[in-house]
Amino acid sequence: MKNYDVRDLTLAKEGKLRIDWAGKEMPVVNLIKERFAGKSPWRECVFLPASISPRKRPIWRLALKEGGAEVVLCASNPLSTQDDVAAALVDYGIPVNAIRGEDNETYYQHIITALEHKPQITMDDGADLVSTLHKDYTDLAANVIGGTEETTTGVIRLRNMARAGKLIYPIIAVNDAQTKHFFDNRYGTGQSTIDGITRATNILWAGRKVVVCGYGWCGKGIARRAQGLGALVIVTEVQPIPALEAAMDGYQVMPLIKACEIGEVFITTTGDTTSLIRHTSCR
Amino acid sequence: MKNYDVRDLTLAKEGKLRIDWAGKEMPVVNLIKERFAGKSPWRECVFLPASISPRKRPIWRLALKEGGAEVVLCASNPLSTQDDVAAALVDYGIPVNAIRGEDNETYYQHIITALEHKPQITMDDGADLVSTLHKDYTDLAANVIGGTEETTTGVIRLRNMARAGKLIYPIIAVNDAQTKHFFDNRYGTGQSTIDGITRATNILWAGRKVVVCGYGWCGKGIARRAQGLGALVIVTEVQPIPALEAAMDGYQVMPLIKACEIGEVFITTTGDTTSLIRHTSCR
Amino acid sequence: MKNYDVRDLTLAKEGKLRIDWAGKEMPVVNLIKERFAGKSPWRECVFLPASISPRKRPIWRLALKEGGAEVVLCASNPLSTQDDVAAALVDYGIPVNAIRGEDNETYYQHIITALEHKPQITMDDGADLVSTLHKDYTDLAANVIGGTEETTTGVIRLRNMARAGKLIYPIIAVNDAQTKHFFDNRYGTGQSTIDGITRATNILWAGRKVVVCGYGWCGKGIARRAQGLGALVIVTEVQPIPALEAAMDGYQVMPLIKACEIGEVFITTTGDTTSLIRHTSCR
Amino acid sequence: MKNYDVRDLTLAKEGKLRIDWAGKEMPVVNLIKERFAGKSPWRECVFLPASISPRKRPIWRLALKEGGAEVVLCASNPLSTQDDVAAALVDYGIPVNAIRGEDNETYYQHIITALEHKPQITMDDGADLVSTLHKDYTDLAANVIGGTEETTTGVIRLRNMARAGKLIYPIIAVNDAQTKHFFDNRYGTGQSTIDGITRATNILWAGRKVVVCGYGWCGKGIARRAQGLGALVIVTEVQPIPALEAAMDGYQVMPLIKACEIGEVFITTTGDTTSLIRHTSCR
Repeated sequence: MKNYDVRDLTLAKEGKLRIDWAGKEMPVVNLIKERFAGKSPWRECVFLPASISPRKRPIWRLALKEGGAEVVLCASNPLSTQDDVAAALVDYGIPVNAIRGEDNETYYQHIITALEHKPQITMDDGADLVSTLHKDYTDLAANVIGGTEETTTGVIRLRNMARAGKLIYPIIAVNDAQTKHFFDNRYGTGQSTIDGITRATNILWAGRKVVVCGYGWCGKGIARRAQGLGALVIVTEVQPIPALEAAMDGYQVMPLIKACEIGEVFITTTGDTTSLIRHTSCR
Repeated sequence: MKNYDVRDLTLAKEGKLRIDWAGKEMPVVNLIKERFAGKSPWRECVFLPASISPRKRPIWRLALKEGGAEVVLCASNPLSTQDDVAAALVDYGIPVNAIRGEDNETYYQHIITALEHKPQITMDDGADLVSTLHKDYTDLAANVIGGTEETTTGVIRLRNMARAGKLIYPIIAVNDAQTKHFFDNRYGTGQSTIDGITRATNILWAGRKVVVCGYGWCGKGIARRAQGLGALVIVTEVQPIPALEAAMDGYQVMPLIKACEIGEVFITTTGDTTSLIRHTSCR
Repeated sequence: MKNYDVRDLTLAKEGKLRIDWAGKEMPVVNLIKERFAGKSPWRECVFLPASISPRKRPIWRLALKEGGAEVVLCASNPLSTQDDVAAALVDYGIPVNAIRGEDNETYYQHIITALEHKPQITMDDGADLVSTLHKDYTDLAANVIGGTEETTTGVIRLRNMARAGKLIYPIIAVNDAQTKHFFDNRYGTGQSTIDGITRATNILWAGRKVVVCGYGWCGKGIARRAQGLGALVIVTEVQPIPALEAAMDGYQVMPLIKACEIGEVFITTTGDTTSLIRHTSCR
Repeated sequence: MKNYDVRDLTLAKEGKLRIDWAGKEMPVVNLIKERFAGKSPWRECVFLPASISPRKRPIWRLALKEGGAEVVLCASNPLSTQDDVAAALVDYGIPVNAIRGEDNETYYQHIITALEHKPQITMDDGADLVSTLHKDYTDLAANVIGGTEETTTGVIRLRNMARAGKLIYPIIAVNDAQTKHFFDNRYGTGQSTIDGITRATNILWAGRKVVVCGYGWCGKGIARRAQGLGALVIVTEVQPIPALEAAMDGYQVMPLIKACEIGEVFITTTGDTTSLIRHTSCR
């Protein structure tokens, strides 16, 4: 009997190309795969990772399989599944239950189908899976020995559950890892923020007056890349220590209200500043 | 009688949005438009610019119209016309004869239709228009007082014509302008090269070993931006003076054959190096 | 009766120029002085700061005086007193007991003379003053309500005293302040290390292969400045997280033994690496 | 008979250390020396270089000697001779006639003594030697086949002589070399300007508002290094093209009068701006 539900299996070839491409950028996972080879440290262990979407995650799933685990997949979000990657994973022998754009009912049905595999480790991305498990399938939750949660939003939900004494098994917050904090925010978000604005607007960064609101890890990464592309960077920051850091790093530092008069591009790293910029008579 | 030929006039609204967006980035043209206002320095002068495509050019056409000129448009390339921008220009009162993907016959027919307006100034982009004018319409060419040519390819064709004593009127090579040379290459090509690679490959630049082949204006611009995004930049250069400049600017400088062993991303600013990289056992 | 002992009072004029120059760079202390003006928050409080030397410290002493305090000075080191600054401070009404190059006996005699003022707050720089107070003048120590210690060396001595239950009054370790840590190391040491090498060797930094051993706060500051002057920076680092940071910041990262083959200038931020460099057949 | 006149031969040891140190930084001259070895391309040719001072020049003199030349030295300026280097050169077999601080009469007497060697090639630095030769020793000048001149001042004097038809032999202006122009100004002056200000003022560059007046080769080099040390760089420039370059390189660009209100450190690369800054009510 068919133990998966994906859009179209013929997309597998395209999906494999994407997975291979992403794999080239992941030397550490490749090293781990090699270490697993022929040893099966995870045999008889059932993993249930939610989310198929970003091209890099499938590599992890395949590494676990290489390590002897039984891996089952559902989505963490009805909109983010990449159908070709899902088809490729089925082809690699992983039961995937996820279709891009599925309705809410199908989405939760897919989670339940995945749960029937009786997972021992969950890898969640937003806490929908863990919530479902804790609400309606507490018997299955008792079977789980631990899990991970990717997002800040998910961690907030889980912390509330823990505080209320309702979290049945321990979960690691991926965000707390030093390598996430130091690297993802500064280098990853630093680049992708700049990149997103380029794609949306086609602007030339050289000579552009760029206001970066907030000089935390993200702000530092963005400011440095914007300057590296030739922009004139202005930093706004309400905390005195990072404000001083920004000044000592050679940026103009000023109150947001004044930056609004000068700036051409505004990048906020905290939600609070967005509305202020919107209400200012800036370009 | 209809004096234009475009895909679909209802696309005008979308086209106007594109033109307006581009216009915000063109303060100098806007200043010129203001200077023209109510003075009509170009009245009774017929301009024939070839090319509708890049979003910024229509702004120039409209500025000329503001200055009193009669402006007529054809394409410089059957593939680059943006149909919505073409529709918008018709709406602004400029006769446009160009449809994206038109066949070769229609493309040249559109040029001829435009020529019937008896242009006094041509603005070409590849020299198709000027060639047509010199081959079959020498009587109309006699009416032209001058023109401009945008591309290097076009300039080569025109220089050959001039050398053979066959160029009927003077044409300015836009590429020779200092503002083109200094700025377009270093800042424009510098950014768009990096951007193109990001869009095609989704790589993170931080920590990436990037080999820039050639340290002329383009190479300088690319190297600086790559370093500005956190890459480790290696320069290869066969001329001793710019090779020394690259070293003094803090980059690693080495022969291409050695750079091939280390590099992860290769950017050549001259065609010669591409084949060498391809034939090397690099990743 | 003369309550001071300095080299030569006629040096006061020169000393005042130095103090004024340093004062221009100290806007925060100047703000504090203004806040003190006419309020005397420190009246009837006796401060005993050790050390006259760096040009910036006298500004602090004068600010305290402005705040109503009685301020008495001795040296923290027989070699670092600036005689002209000492003379200037006497002229400003502060009893100074310190002469550059004084012998050990005079140095300690000067500390004792200062202690006779019965200080309530000590500001030490190496812990000689505090040690003297705890060894031979415990009755005076009982009078002290608190103090500060500038150096790491001094803090180590004090922590040992505290551990042994022998520290009579609380002392703040200046080094623990975030503004010390974040700023002094990265920007201050970052610049002065580069500067010291320039003065000693007269090298041109552009194109120079500079090995920075250690990528902590000091190393980060040094690496950035060396690159900012056009050097090619190589980082060596034994901790994996900062080593990864260095790579993502665009520097070459390699084992020290390999860096020794390539590097031209070596800057260690930890003592351990010095001997290794010395024993390598590097230039 | 003694064919030299220096301060004190016992300084030779110290002078040799200085020469050796400078020699380590001169790989190209060292390569040339090696190429000369055993070939004597300059045998029977008499060189008369004026100037002993900068530590690097003696290396050149020794390379010529290695090449078989007879080399004789005088000063180009009574104040710039380094007596220890002069002593070392005598020890290496080069007749030197120069003493730091010698009076005008001795200075010219030393030039005349050197001329008695009947030089065939002169290497001047300010044109005092060449002027003497043309004024009073035209018979010896006829013997000279060519020369070099280091300074702009010297070149101006020589151009005037050439224009008046009075220059007897051809002289190369060192300043016209691309390697001088591109490298000395950007990297050399770029660093030494920053360095000079640090030594004179002891300022921290991080966060400092630095105004660079003029964005030519020197200005570009200074601006980049100041930014590389963490300064906030403001550029003033009266030429539109380099002003635009400065903006596209990410610096603030504004009229000098406005920069005077903001700036903390002012660096002019043209004499004209100095008086303007002086007359502005800036700090």
